Amino acid sequence: MKIFAYGIREDEKSSIENWKSANPDVEVDYTDQTLTPETATLAKGASGIVTLQTTPYERESLKILKDEGISNISIRNVGYDNFNFDDLKEFNFKLSNVPVYSPNAIAEHAVLLIGRLLRRIPEVDTKFDNGDFTWAPTIGKEYREQTVGVIGTGHIGRVAIQMLQGFGAKVIAYDVYHNEAIEKQGLYVDTLEELYQQADVITLHVPLTSDNAYMIDEKAIEQMKDGVYLINCARGELISNDALIKGLDSGKIAGAGLDVLDHENNVFGKKWGSINNLPDPTIKNLAERQNVIITPHNAFYTETAIWNMIEVSFDSNKDLIEGKIPDTLVYSKK
Amino acid sequence: MKIFAYGIREDEKSSIENWKSANPDVEVDYTDQTLTPETATLAKGASGIVTLQTTPYERESLKILKDEGISNISIRNVGYDNFNFDDLKEFNFKLSNVPVYSPNAIAEHAVLLIGRLLRRIPEVDTKFDNGDFTWAPTIGKEYREQTVGVIGTGHIGRVAIQMLQGFGAKVIAYDVYHNEAIEKQGLYVDTLEELYQQADVITLHVPLTSDNAYMIDEKAIEQMKDGVYLINCARGELISNDALIKGLDSGKIAGAGLDVLDHENNVFGKKWGSINNLPDPTIKNLAERQNVIITPHNAFYTETAIWNMIEVSFDSNKDLIEGKIPDTLVYSKK
Ligand SMILES: NC(=O)c1ccc[n+]([C@@H]2O[C@H](COP(=O)([O-])OP(=O)(O)OC[C@H]3O[C@@H](n4cnc5c(N)ncnc54)[C@H](O)[C@@H]3O)[C@@H](O)[C@H]2O)c1
Ligand SMILES: NC(=O)c1ccc[n+]([C@@H]2O[C@H](COP(=O)([O-])OP(=O)(O)OC[C@H]3O[C@@H](n4cnc5c(N)ncnc54)[C@H](O)[C@@H]3O)[C@@H](O)[C@H]2O)c1
Repeated sequence: MKIFAYGIREDEKSSIENWKSANPDVEVDYTDQTLTPETATLAKGASGIVTLQTTPYERESLKILKDEGISNISIRNVGYDNFNFDDLKEFNFKLSNVPVYSPNAIAEHAVLLIGRLLRRIPEVDTKFDNGDFTWAPTIGKEYREQTVGVIGTGHIGRVAIQMLQGFGAKVIAYDVYHNEAIEKQGLYVDTLEELYQQADVITLHVPLTSDNAYMIDEKAIEQMKDGVYLINCARGELISNDALIKGLDSGKIAGAGLDVLDHENNVFGKKWGSINNLPDPTIKNLAERQNVIITPHNAFYTETAIWNMIEVSFDSNKDLIEGKIPDTLVYSKK
Repeated sequence: MKIFAYGIREDEKSSIENWKSANPDVEVDYTDQTLTPETATLAKGASGIVTLQTTPYERESLKILKDEGISNISIRNVGYDNFNFDDLKEFNFKLSNVPVYSPNAIAEHAVLLIGRLLRRIPEVDTKFDNGDFTWAPTIGKEYREQTVGVIGTGHIGRVAIQMLQGFGAKVIAYDVYHNEAIEKQGLYVDTLEELYQQADVITLHVPLTSDNAYMIDEKAIEQMKDGVYLINCARGELISNDALIKGLDSGKIAGAGLDVLDHENNVFGKKWGSINNLPDPTIKNLAERQNVIITPHNAFYTETAIWNMIEVSFDSNKDLIEGKIPDTLVYSKK
């Protein structure tokens, strides 16, 4: 049995070696290139492929894989919206994903962003770079004095709540679906309005759906407390950059921690030499502020997450090849 | 009744106003200057003084206070080693301190330092400043994968443990005195050697005593795991800078988070224009490293801590003036 993997990064290689050692019966080969009509033949001889990319999977690539006798695809990430399911059906592919790789990686990134804003770390860091070793005026606030509103109590939101409670913060939560354990703790408020009115810090852990794009717009921000902190490690399109900038300008919003950004594809994943060169003016505006921390959609980027993405995707691909149905199955004909 | 306060900083003024509103029967006046023979007469008419300074309290200053009829001194911090107790006795002063103002402030600073090192935030920040929005190679580690060794399970160590457990870290602890709740959880190891051998991250929360200066020396570091992270938010003299630098150079120590430093008085509290100008070569050496985070002994510096320092010191001074014995009493004749 052979599995061929596409788009393998340097940081994934040791995890692949680990998986190979644990599965000596499987031959594994890989490329750093993504799956294209040009690279599809590289998988020749394999029974399944493991892949990860943010651009659409072309029909032509899938057709070549099919012609090579390959019918099992396992992606190393969650989202499969860059597949055309008509193609998968026509060529009779089975598809699996990695539905959860490390909620903790993202939750701790969000919780760290909160602490870095509350303790004014960007300002303290600038003072440090200037050899300024005085305390004032960068006095901090403590987690335990904050009411933190967690929007979305799925895998990530729930571990974020545990972390925040460890710090002694008061947590309130909102979700369209109520998790039993969180319900028992009495953390839910009934409406977003209530959460906006009570929270000193708001952190987003919901997916982007057809009805919540720009859920944080001018109207939502108006309902929030003066001096609120906003954290987004979910999806950029949940917050309008324009509304955010307006709120920061007026002081309504005291700070923002953003691992995802409205229009992030304009800037993330690339090297610009300096933030002065950012081609998107609203993102540049945000990036220049000391009370805004931007990270390049790397909240998930831990050794644990990478290992889980490799392990689960390769395990799933092996299962598919062996005719088993993994928990991670996304698509299979009929 | 009048209380006069010395060394009042800008950030303490709103807390003083709050205390005054709650105590309209007490007249309060203050100066930003510290207590010296020159400023001692400023307290004329007061029955007690509230003070905070890091330099010794001069006999002459105390004598002038005494001559003005003042016999109650309340410091806004913990440590009273810059008083000569023979002077206090001779002039018949009563002295109070603020034994605990915010364990959370220091514990959360330590826990944030751990997260910032694990997630390689200084490197990610440098990439950001260079407009580099790619992930690699700054992959992070998660708290929950770490065994964290907490040395000292007093007020600060214990809240740090709660925070670390919120993140899902495995905590082990060492203290000469065993706290009951921590004992029940089974967190204690019997010796420092055991802690050094097991911990991926070590954080110090013990006082500096006559027998633990440079407790983290070359010999201690040798016993630690390769790639250990060291956090010191307790006292600088607990870690030898030379041993630390040697450990960082060899890679034995993967990173350090230091709110206190061996010889910190050479550099902290001042503005040097740039870290290039730091006059202490070992501190400069540490400050230049991307895997070392130095903060200027500001772990305690939160709005909550400042309020508690003002409230407790003024309450104690009022008690002393009224002839009551506050819990915070440090010295009283007989
Ligand atoms: N920054 C990153 O690197 C990164 C990585 C992975 C996931 N994410 C984001 O985090 C989000 C949450 O991930 P998860 O694993 O916790 O997902 P999950 O499916 O376990 O939880 C999502 C929760 O949101 C709730 N929800 C859905 N729509 C809602 C709405 N309109 N209002 C309120 N609640 C709503 C659901 O009921 C569910 O409880 C993902 O959707 C993704 O956008 C970001
Ligand atoms: N960075 C800052 O801004 C800041 C502010 C306040 C305090 N501190 C430091 O933090 C330290 C801890 O503060 P705390 O309020 O938790 O004190 P604490 O007295 O409540 O606890 C100290 C603990 O250390 C233990 N201990 C004493 N000597 C020891 C030794 N040699 N080995 C092992 N354990 C030992 C004691 O038994 C006690 O449990 C203080 O002593 C001070 O040095 C730093």
